[in-house]
Parts: sequence; structure tokens; C-alpha cells
Amino acid sequence: MADTKDPIFLRPVTAHAADIGKAVTFGPGQPLMLDCGRVLSPFTIAYMTYGKLNAARSNAVLLCHALTGDQFAASEHPLTGKPGWWNLMVGPGKPIDTDRFFVICANVIGSCMGTTGPAEMDPATGKPYGLSFPLITVRDMVRAQAMLLDALGIQTLLAVIGGSMGGMQVLQWAATFPDRIRAAVPIACAARHSAQNIAFHEVGRQAIMADPDWHCGEYQLHGTSPGKGLAVARMAAHITYLSEAALQRKFGRNLQNREALSFQFAPDFQIESYLHYQGAAFVDRFDANAYLYITRAMDYFDMAAEHDGKLADAFQGCHARFCIISFTSDWLFPTVENKRVAHALNAVAAKVSFVEISTDKGHDAFLLDEPEMFDTMRGFLNSVAAADGIA
Amino acid sequence: MADTKDPIFLRPVTAHAADIGKAVTFGPGQPLMLDCGRVLSPFTIAYMTYGKLNAARSNAVLLCHALTGDQFAASEHPLTGKPGWWNLMVGPGKPIDTDRFFVICANVIGSCMGTTGPAEMDPATGKPYGLSFPLITVRDMVRAQAMLLDALGIQTLLAVIGGSMGGMQVLQWAATFPDRIRAAVPIACAARHSAQNIAFHEVGRQAIMADPDWHCGEYQLHGTSPGKGLAVARMAAHITYLSEAALQRKFGRNLQNREALSFQFAPDFQIESYLHYQGAAFVDRFDANAYLYITRAMDYFDMAAEHDGKLADAFQGCHARFCIISFTSDWLFPTVENKRVAHALNAVAAKVSFVEISTDKGHDAFLLDEPEMFDTMRGFLNSVAAADGIA
Repeated sequence: MADTKDPIFLRPVTAHAADIGKAVTFGPGQPLMLDCGRVLSPFTIAYMTYGKLNAARSNAVLLCHALTGDQFAASEHPLTGKPGWWNLMVGPGKPIDTDRFFVICANVIGSCMGTTGPAEMDPATGKPYGLSFPLITVRDMVRAQAMLLDALGIQTLLAVIGGSMGGMQVLQWAATFPDRIRAAVPIACAARHSAQNIAFHEVGRQAIMADPDWHCGEYQLHGTSPGKGLAVARMAAHITYLSEAALQRKFGRNLQNREALSFQFAPDFQIESYLHYQGAAFVDRFDANAYLYITRAMDYFDMAAEHDGKLADAFQGCHARFCIISFTSDWLFPTVENKRVAHALNAVAAKVSFVEISTDKGHDAFLLDEPEMFDTMRGFLNSVAAADGIA
Repeated sequence: MADTKDPIFLRPVTAHAADIGKAVTFGPGQPLMLDCGRVLSPFTIAYMTYGKLNAARSNAVLLCHALTGDQFAASEHPLTGKPGWWNLMVGPGKPIDTDRFFVICANVIGSCMGTTGPAEMDPATGKPYGLSFPLITVRDMVRAQAMLLDALGIQTLLAVIGGSMGGMQVLQWAATFPDRIRAAVPIACAARHSAQNIAFHEVGRQAIMADPDWHCGEYQLHGTSPGKGLAVARMAAHITYLSEAALQRKFGRNLQNREALSFQFAPDFQIESYLHYQGAAFVDRFDANAYLYITRAMDYFDMAAEHDGKLADAFQGCHARFCIISFTSDWLFPTVENKRVAHALNAVAAKVSFVEISTDKGHDAFLLDEPEMFDTMRGFLNSVAAADGIA
């Protein structure tokens, strides 16, 4: 039986003394079987919950976070003090209404906010895992989430919801545990990572690995941190989360705190200062090795690969209702990739609605104030809840 | 009078003993006045020519190279041994026909193939310039080219032609020396660098500057080279030169020399190996500081800025014929940016033709086998030459 006491007993390295929320540690009798063939044991899942589980245990909604997200979807981040990453979406009276639903959000395997990842102590060695941590996949993340639900006594999710890599997890839930979900909302995602997306991830990984403070992943032992490399990785990735139009609208060629070009290499343009800020802020809250592992998990994601390229076969036997959401200006996971998922689901006669939202905010739109997304989510969950007799 | 003897006498640091082609060194009496207010003197322009100047000196065509290009447009690169970067376009019987035209291609100021740039020796100190080299602009590049033409005894160009940053130079020629050009072919470019493009450049610069072997630009004095940072910069930039569709078509999720995922961080995917190769090959031929300077010159490029945002005013008094070429899948300099130039030229009643070429090859299409581009170039130059009575 999992140890569900709070606080956790496997102390996180990265989150340090920060309150990482709730946690379940799975002991030697409950190993996580990984796609790579290795076993992770023991391991901890850090998570947050919002709202109350009803007596029938039928109102649970699982939120799956994106690459650099965490369990703090609707509550203050313990390291940054910032509001939850989905504060606009999740809370009392909000589209994912915590007055009605029991919302769970767990830090994924491989990450760094309390769930076991490469920055955590390997109990077998007494040292941080570093690159001895096994490569994980999106399916491994989902398997770990299922074990968390078991520990919480929840058999079936009313809905599983997520954007970007969170959407990948949603799709994987539908494929791996089709009987445990009533509804699924994959947002701004794809059933496979594209060549271009792999390319951008590889640039980020190479930036981290090029930093001499990375020390082949053993920077914790060296008392260093590959912050420069990680900042460059974040800056490159951040561009892909926005759109050319939004960058032009927000920043254009505006200068930062100056009247004229400096003819120096310090930031002249607002967009440069903004990127520097994004890079620096990220380094303060995220582990470089975790970034390597999670980007790799996304690169490996290809749901059709196991079915001779037939994506529809991955969804055979899934009777959940789907609501797929994409954004017109998302060039990381463009609408065409989201539509491919919709077509595959149609091919197995699944119940699918598809909404493409017009916005210039790019991929990050799923985290931002997008009223049409909120309306879509509220309406879909209302309908799903009503069908299940949930008040 | 400029010293036009061959070989050059200001010895390049980066091109070393390689044959950098022809060169002109401008002595103390012929300084280059820079936009930043500083003066560059002495300085050398390395260049190549193809074909013969006619008796009337009326058949000269200037090619302007892109960010990482050089003077070897139609001849073997002395460091890499590869064919000229525009071998498909320039040569006997080719669209830019060296049987008819005297083609000149000069390495831009700030670059590293023999023209004076940050890797060259500062005669005032006896040490490489490094970051003491003045920031240069696209207009500075064009001014230096005009001085080269003066030295070669060429008053008027039949045409000035270039893609990407080469296209920026073409537009700048039209604005700065309208009476010295008969025709202009700006390809895959813009009259200003966008926020997104500045952002990608800043990522590359930060990758270089984060490399401890960069030594604040004084790596030559330290006997090092920031190759890891420069490779990351190139990898990030290279993605922007292609298109998502071309990457998917060429690489997709194909694995490199393996049957299955490795569950390691070494390159599994062909796209990763390809990027690694691009990064490594670039480091062998290009100077990191030159990359900083030339990306900055592109970021600073904004032709409308000096005219209260009215781009058309930049082209007042230019009577050249224009042929603007863009590519449908170019997301670095999308068609809309090229069209903005066409509209500005229309507004001053210039003679403009505009061709958008359908291709999935992205920005790099201007360097590739694009028959419609070749046909367009051939037809346009034929027409321009015929109007000038050139055989």
C-alpha cells in the first residue's frame, strides 16, 4: 500500500524546503514499470488537489501539465510565488469548477517539483540520479498517474484534461486506460512529435549539455548549475510558444529603456529583454536534467508507431467523449496535427467535438485568457457531468 | 587610390592561408564612415569576380551574400571545398550568365572570409579586434561595396541581386545609391527585421556568449574557440531556414542508423544528426564574433525607421527596375514582408514585378534548385540587359 502521508518522506532535491503539496510514495512493492524496460522504485508523485471528491467518487478530473508545468495549476507556486498556471481555468465557478469537481494535478515522473526525477536522490547510491535516471515516456507519466489514482481510491475519471504535453498525456490516457476515463480534453497537442519540434528540443538539450557547469549531468555533485545553457534552451523554446504576429504586436521593434540603438550587444530591443527575463526566471525554478528528460519524452511520443502507423488503432475500444481544442496561430502543434487526432477518433466512431480557436497568441494560448476556450471547456464539462448525473 | 594588388596585404586571421580570392585594401586616406559614428580604417574587401567586364563597363552585376555567406558564390569554397553557394544560379549559361555579365561578389564588412571583421588584426593594437570592432549595419556593408566598385572603376551596376540579408543589401543599395543601379532583385527578404527574427538571433548570440571559450570575444588571444555555443546558434538558426513541411518530408521521425529508440540522449532521430552536422560544419568555417556582428546588423535593419515609418520614402528617386521574389513556405521572411516592399515601391511609382514561388523548402529555397526562381531571374535579367543594349 502506498504511503500517502503528508509531508512526503523522500525529500526532493530541487524543490528543497518548498511546500510541494501532497505526495504519495510508492515503495518497493509498487514499482513503476517503464517503457524503456527499466523499473523505477521507490518513487514519489507530488500532486495538488482542488475541490472535493463526491461520495460516489465520480467527479474526479485529472489535469495533465505541460513540459515545464507542475502540480500548482490553481494555487501559488511555492518557488516563484506566482499564481497557478491555470488559475484562469480552474477554481470555484471557473470553467473547471472546483465547486463541482475534484481536480487532481500531479507533477509528472521525470520532473522536479517533488515527483521523482533526475534531480532526486537515488536511494541505491545516495546520490542524485543525474543521467542514471531512466528515460521516461509520456506513457510512463500516465502509468504513474494511474497508480496515484489507485492510491487515492479513484477508479474512473470524469475527465482528463491538458494542453501541449498535457494533451499528449490525455491522448495516452485514452489509449492506455480507455475504461478509466469518461471524457478527454486534449488541447494544442499532437499524437506525435514533429521533426521540427524534435529539432527545437535538440537545440535546447545541446545548449544545456554545452554548458560546462552541466558536468555530464552531475552538476549537483559539483555544486554547480548549467544555468546559462538552460536559459538559452528556454529562450529558444519560448519563441516557439508564441506567434510571429503576437511578438510583432507586443514588442515589434520597440527599444527597451532607450531612445536610439546603442550599437552595442546589450539588449536594445524589448523582445531581447523579454527573452532574457524568461530565461533567467526559468533557471530559478526548473532543473536542467529534468528538462532533458521531459523534452526527450515528448520527442519519443508517437501514438501511431505501435500500430503500423494507424493512429485510429490506438483508440480502439475507447468510449470516452472527446473535445479537441486547437489555436489558429499555434505553429508548434498546429491545427492540422490536432485534426489528425480528430480524424483518427472519427475512424473508430468515437464521440469527438473539435474546436479551433482564432487567436494570435500562439501555442501558449492554452495558458492565457481565451474566452472561447473557457466557454468550450465549461460547456463540454457541463454536458459530461450532466450525462453522469453530477450536480 | 586603393591598393588592388593580389594577394591582399592585410592578412586575414580566420581565412588563414586559404585563398580568399581577390582583395582591395583601403588605406588611411579612404576610411569607411560607419552608421555608428565610428570610422573603419584601414580595411580590406575580399571579393570574387566571374565573367568579364565589357568595354562600356555596363554589364556588372553585384551579388550580395546572406548572413553566413561569402564571396564564393560560383566557385569552390577554399575552406570547405564545397561548390559555390549559388552555383546553380551563377555561371556560364546559367540564369546569372557569366558569359554575358561581369559578376562581383564581395565578403561583407564584419564577416570572416578576408574582408575586415572582428577576427582581423586591429593595426592600432596589433591584436584581433574582437568586441572592439565597431558595430556595423547593412548600410555600412553597402557603402563598402560601393567603395569596392569605385576601386574597380564601375560606376553603375546593371543589377544588384541577393537573398535574405543579401536582399536587405539590395534594398539598401536602392535607397543609398539609387543612381548607381539599373535593376534590383531582392529575394526572400524584408525592409525590417521582425521581432521574431531578432528573438532567434538573440538566442544564437546568447548561446555563443554563454560559451566560456568565448572569453568576452577575446578567444583568439586565449587560443580557444566558442565552438559549442556557435554550433548551438547555428542549429537554432538552421531550423528557421527550413519549413516544417520540408523537415517532415525529409526526416519525419526517421531514426538514424538504428531500428528502435535508444532510450539515451545520443541522437536517435535523423533530424538530430542532421542538426549536429550543420552545427559542426559551420564551426569549421565561420567566426563566432562575426556571427554576433552580422546578426546584429540584420536586427538593426529597418529602412522605414529614418522616414517616420514611411517605407516608400526610402525609395524616392530610385528609377531602377525591381524584381521581388518570395517563397510560400518561408516563415523567416514571409511573403507578406516581401509584399510590403513591393507596395512601398508601387507607392513611388517604381517599376516592380513580384513573384511568389510555391515551394515547401522554406527560406533556404533561394539557395536551392527552384526552377521558377531560375526562370524568373533569367527572364528579368534578359529584359534588363536588352533595354541596356547588352548582348
